[in-house]
Amino acid sequence: MNASEFRKRGKEMVDYIADYLEGIEARQVYPDVEPGYLRPLIPASAPQEPETFEDIMTDVEKIIMPGVTHWHSPHFFAYFPTASSYPAMLADMLCGAIGCIGFSWAASPACTELETVMMDWLGKMLELPEAFLAESGGEGGGVIQGSASEATLVALLAARTKVTRQLQMASPELSQASIMEKLVAYSSDQVVATLGTTPCCSFDNLLEVGPICTEANVWLHIDAAYAGSAFICPEFRHLLNGVEFADSFNFNPHKWLLVNFDCSAMWVKKRSSLTGAFKLDPLYLKHSHQDSGLITDYRHWQLPLGRRFRSLKMWFVFRMYGVKGLQAYIRKHVQLSHEFESLVRQDPCFEICAEVTLGLVCFRLKGTNEQNEALLEKINSAKKIHLVPCHLREKFVLRFAICSRTVESAHVQQAWKHIRELTTELLRAQKK
Amino acid sequence: MNASEFRKRGKEMVDYIADYLEGIEARQVYPDVEPGYLRPLIPASAPQEPETFEDIMTDVEKIIMPGVTHWHSPHFFAYFPTASSYPAMLADMLCGAIGCIGFSWAASPACTELETVMMDWLGKMLELPEAFLAESGGEGGGVIQGSASEATLVALLAARTKVTRQLQMASPELSQASIMEKLVAYSSDQVVATLGTTPCCSFDNLLEVGPICTEANVWLHIDAAYAGSAFICPEFRHLLNGVEFADSFNFNPHKWLLVNFDCSAMWVKKRSSLTGAFKLDPLYLKHSHQDSGLITDYRHWQLPLGRRFRSLKMWFVFRMYGVKGLQAYIRKHVQLSHEFESLVRQDPCFEICAEVTLGLVCFRLKGTNEQNEALLEKINSAKKIHLVPCHLREKFVLRFAICSRTVESAHVQQAWKHIRELTTELLRAQKK
Repeated sequence: MNASEFRKRGKEMVDYIADYLEGIEARQVYPDVEPGYLRPLIPASAPQEPETFEDIMTDVEKIIMPGVTHWHSPHFFAYFPTASSYPAMLADMLCGAIGCIGFSWAASPACTELETVMMDWLGKMLELPEAFLAESGGEGGGVIQGSASEATLVALLAARTKVTRQLQMASPELSQASIMEKLVAYSSDQVVATLGTTPCCSFDNLLEVGPICTEANVWLHIDAAYAGSAFICPEFRHLLNGVEFADSFNFNPHKWLLVNFDCSAMWVKKRSSLTGAFKLDPLYLKHSHQDSGLITDYRHWQLPLGRRFRSLKMWFVFRMYGVKGLQAYIRKHVQLSHEFESLVRQDPCFEICAEVTLGLVCFRLKGTNEQNEALLEKINSAKKIHLVPCHLREKFVLRFAICSRTVESAHVQQAWKHIRELTTELLRAQKK
Repeated sequence: MNASEFRKRGKEMVDYIADYLEGIEARQVYPDVEPGYLRPLIPASAPQEPETFEDIMTDVEKIIMPGVTHWHSPHFFAYFPTASSYPAMLADMLCGAIGCIGFSWAASPACTELETVMMDWLGKMLELPEAFLAESGGEGGGVIQGSASEATLVALLAARTKVTRQLQMASPELSQASIMEKLVAYSSDQVVATLGTTPCCSFDNLLEVGPICTEANVWLHIDAAYAGSAFICPEFRHLLNGVEFADSFNFNPHKWLLVNFDCSAMWVKKRSSLTGAFKLDPLYLKHSHQDSGLITDYRHWQLPLGRRFRSLKMWFVFRMYGVKGLQAYIRKHVQLSHEFESLVRQDPCFEICAEVTLGLVCFRLKGTNEQNEALLEKINSAKKIHLVPCHLREKFVLRFAICSRTVESAHVQQAWKHIRELTTELLRAQKK
């Protein structure tokens, strides 16, 4: 395919995407397919000769779409949101075209420098302490990781390297293994200090945990994967109080800040604690500026060597929405979750199972776990909306997460009406 | 931005991308900027109010492009290639629009199932042993990782889990730490068994290493990050002989198989060795099919939880190029590297420093390391082409890697002419 065919096909793809997203509400949110559905529909091997773009797009509608769970449907209330916005998609197209691998400053200076500045922009939107920002000229700074899991692993390895070196200095006679045996990582039953847990969006109290960690010289990593985006609104910022005690902090703009996956934002107070753990310096990656102290080589901040130009997505989204637009988006979702909460509270058959702080409502039928499992089964088999459950203190609970960028009050009302109808059916069947 | 503005802006972006890639040869391959160039050019904080798409695109040309190293310029001969093709870009647009997070089968069945089948297609293109393919109905199968580093780490953790369990069974009295102390990982000076090392594209002999690993019950992971793509050509397939001894095998289609970053292909013979090490099963990720034995939940195969619909890129590229088109692409690059090699060999001032097997030529001036460093400095300061060096047995060596999809014989000839001119200048200046 040459540039001129790409002009044609690219524009067709833009229209296909716009059609897909404009019409997504009409597609069944959860697919009908059974495991193994796809293999019989496509050849067993790659074709020897080229096929046409039309052939492929026909197959997209015929083979792929029937097996897609439509995460951006306004009927999708499962897991947590995954971000999707047009500005992020445009930036991703540009990112793919530039196609640089920004493992060092020299590998594409713009890729590294825009990332550093975007992480400062975002840090300021969250009112992170100065110590986490690169512009302060201190030791702090931000980096885009692929996921919160990677950020946690990076923090854990950095913490381990730091404490191992301290122990080796203090007791040079200790072997690596006997040091390893002494190391302890503390976590809650949701792992590390968490703001906005996945099951029920609960919050650890950083003002209690933080000073203890500081006193005991324990690395404090804070994971706010979902909730972090909300802290750009002043009314939710208090949930982040105590972040000043942390060594590292992470959240996922790719969940709730309209920056398409992947974009997991991580800040550290001391960049040398990361680069000390991951430094990799073969000659083919060296460049003349690297020892100047002026530049950042992000390969030392992460597990993989390669990295895409992901900060373009942040730049496009932050500028095309503006901070006010992003705040309005968060607030709309929170308002919709409270709307759903109040519908549930008005029904004496149901109970709310956890405080509703952001965009997640945990609720259940007042009854047995089996009844609630049966209700969820009914909901997900009907495939008009899609939910997933969680366990809270031995109870089987339904999670209603506000997810789609285009979800409105009408969808929430309709979802609740549908859940009540299925509940009535369920209870009637059980009475018989 | 709504769908109708996206239709307009998306098409403008398609044209911008086509213009960029059609005109890339005219842009200076390596930028003029100095560290810190970008921060003064953009505001210190995100805007409160939305800005327009035009504003942003003006800044892309004014602020971003002057700081980009153009990896897809036909004057770029540094590092290794990173893949770029129009079909992959089209697929990536679609991937962004579907925007599913395929951590489980249920989270988007098409995402999981197409990946399994595409990894089989690719495995067959490489003539991998049946044991690595999912279609064989055995225990093997493939997965897309983000990078070869992640694949290596995943293999290492799986190997550690496997041997730790064996030791615990054999000697239940051993503590975790004393087991850890016993573990050994063997590697060459380029790490793990490698086909196509980064400095000089050398190859380990798997037919020697393999049987020893099998006999000693050592996990054998093979990394062919760059070279792997060449094995789709029958004439290079012999370099992969011995892969039948491996437990896991990995290479990066995102380097040399026209599938844009990221797409790192990994196969294992025993999927339970991965899923045993990474299994994560909270209630909100469970689904009704997961214990059926019929499905794959890829979150158990990797470090992060989230994953994009990356197999779309493979599907688009394999179909729109066809196997023959991909083979032709590999062969053209290999032919161009041999063309450069023969130019170097015709010049008595230069020497070839490693056998040229695929698309990389390692060469140097017959002279001191300092002379070669000075030559590279001259080349990269002139910014007409871009190269990086390596060390081979204490010698400072220049790497000439065939990278761009659009590089032709004329570019290689022109690059060599330019290198010779700079060499003449250098030697003349040194004589003075």
